[in-house]
Amino acid sequence: SQTTEDAERYVSDWITLNVGGRHFTTSRSTLLTKEPLSMLARMFADDNNMYLMTPSATDTTGAYLIDRSPEYFEPILNYLRHGDVILDKHVNPKGVMEEAVFYGIDSMIPHLNQLIEESTLASSSNQSLT
Amino acid sequence: SQTTEDAERYVSDWITLNVGGRHFTTSRSTLLTKEPLSMLARMFADDNNMYLMTPSATDTTGAYLIDRSPEYFEPILNYLRHGDVILDKHVNPKGVMEEAVFYGIDSMIPHLNQLIEESTLASSSNQSLT
Amino acid sequence: SQTTEDAERYVSDWITLNVGGRHFTTSRSTLLTKEPLSMLARMFADDNNMYLMTPSATDTTGAYLIDRSPEYFEPILNYLRHGDVILDKHVNPKGVMEEAVFYGIDSMIPHLNQLIEESTLASSSNQSLT
Amino acid sequence: SQTTEDAERYVSDWITLNVGGRHFTTSRSTLLTKEPLSMLARMFADDNNMYLMTPSATDTTGAYLIDRSPEYFEPILNYLRHGDVILDKHVNPKGVMEEAVFYGIDSMIPHLNQLIEESTLASSSNQSLT
Amino acid sequence: SQTTEDAERYVSDWITLNVGGRHFTTSRSTLLTKEPLSMLARMFADDNNMYLMTPSATDTTGAYLIDRSPEYFEPILNYLRHGDVILDKHVNPKGVMEEAVFYGIDSMIPHLNQLIEESTLASSSNQSLT
Repeated sequence: SQTTEDAERYVSDWITLNVGGRHFTTSRSTLLTKEPLSMLARMFADDNNMYLMTPSATDTTGAYLIDRSPEYFEPILNYLRHGDVILDKHVNPKGVMEEAVFYGIDSMIPHLNQLIEESTLASSSNQSLT
Repeated sequence: SQTTEDAERYVSDWITLNVGGRHFTTSRSTLLTKEPLSMLARMFADDNNMYLMTPSATDTTGAYLIDRSPEYFEPILNYLRHGDVILDKHVNPKGVMEEAVFYGIDSMIPHLNQLIEESTLASSSNQSLT
Repeated sequence: SQTTEDAERYVSDWITLNVGGRHFTTSRSTLLTKEPLSMLARMFADDNNMYLMTPSATDTTGAYLIDRSPEYFEPILNYLRHGDVILDKHVNPKGVMEEAVFYGIDSMIPHLNQLIEESTLASSSNQSLT
Repeated sequence: SQTTEDAERYVSDWITLNVGGRHFTTSRSTLLTKEPLSMLARMFADDNNMYLMTPSATDTTGAYLIDRSPEYFEPILNYLRHGDVILDKHVNPKGVMEEAVFYGIDSMIPHLNQLIEESTLASSSNQSLT
Repeated sequence: SQTTEDAERYVSDWITLNVGGRHFTTSRSTLLTKEPLSMLARMFADDNNMYLMTPSATDTTGAYLIDRSPEYFEPILNYLRHGDVILDKHVNPKGVMEEAVFYGIDSMIPHLNQLIEESTLASSSNQSLT
């Protein structure tokens, strides 16, 4: 059956994710190392080069489909790569928070809470100028 | 006829939308669950794995064509995924409002009205500084 | 000849434009309805399902080639879809004005003039703070 | 030889440039007319429908490869299309200046110098508020 | 073996990098000249038209896979092209710093440190207004 075929799919070192329609290429070790108990890590964990879970469906190019925002996934993936939470000025930290919670990247949450607080302070200080 | 073929098209769990030229990949349950009476939900509702309505035309990759703004559709789709209205700072909330009304995502409208009001206040307070 | 073949091309309901290298998908009715005398409408007007003018060249995917800015075309196309002039905060309204004039979307021009004026006021008020 | 083949390549009216990995589609007349002595114009000048210079290498889609920034090329190409220097608010004018100098679009340089000066004034006036 | 085949891969003048899922096209001389001892330069250094190191894996289009942020790589590549550190206003300089350190582009680091300092000053001066 299709399900058995999926479960038997060999593990590759390079993984492309189709997050909401945009492609992100990364390595399996990036997804597994920083936060090994996260949902994202468990999706791509392997035993003896076979996936432990049935991985999600793939698109026609072989990228794993994830039904989430691509934009707010970017800082999540960068965090898994180097361990720092870095957002551009126009990015709403609440959007990144939703994704961190969804993917189970728990160690990002205190940092994002702080960014959300700072951004709320900044916008109320702008309004208090009038 | 072409129309009959379309109506008989089987329902897939993963759906790609071509919104104004950009591809968005999502699941049918995201489009149906949050706002089941919206136009978007009714476009992809099914009975016994067959579409109830004739779905819209598809492009050569099989993505459903929708003649609307891709940029302002992003926060709509994120809202259907997790239930929060989240906009980046540079995004004009009036643009998102147009799409929420078009797709019939009524529960977003009060939130968007508040964001439009706040953004009008902020820009007039900037001008009153002079 | 090539020109005759082009003139005989059948009219499709869905049209993809290649504007400066980016693809925009829209419907013929969007291009024709809001501003029927514009250059853009006349490019895609038809008589009896045949184009009245020889349409512009197409790329290998069949998209009609237009040698203009893709970024500033976005708010033009949105305007043709729903009739409101909506710009994000970082977008320079002068860029959109150039395109409205080029495509002959005359009813946008007073709105854009107002946005250009407001943006000039805002930046000079910022400078007068010093 | 490869070089001879390249030199014999016929001139097309539509030209796609691959600037640093992003595709820009434009017409040969846009590249030639506004600033005929620029490096960019000379790259695509022709005599009797044959290129005068050996054009640069092309990618697999036939786009001419240019090893420069795509983002800062956009306002350059728009300038060649309509003759106005228009930048969005977040775009650093120094980035556009680098490209104007590289491509030899000399008539843009005084405009860009003015934008760089204004942006320096604006950021120092922000700092003097403290 | 696969490794031997990779090591024997011929060196091309044009190189496409797949950085985190986005394609960047550049020339080998851009990667090698400005900072010859960097990790990026050593990845593409050659001896007699053969790579010295086993180059990284490639995607199906032949682009070299690098598991890093595409957005913050852009100013790095521009720096290698023309030698100036230029960031748009919304770009977080800390994100570019992470990449400069990763790729070993040491001469960018003092410039980025200065931009990080200025951006910290600017945001604290905004807060001190209240």
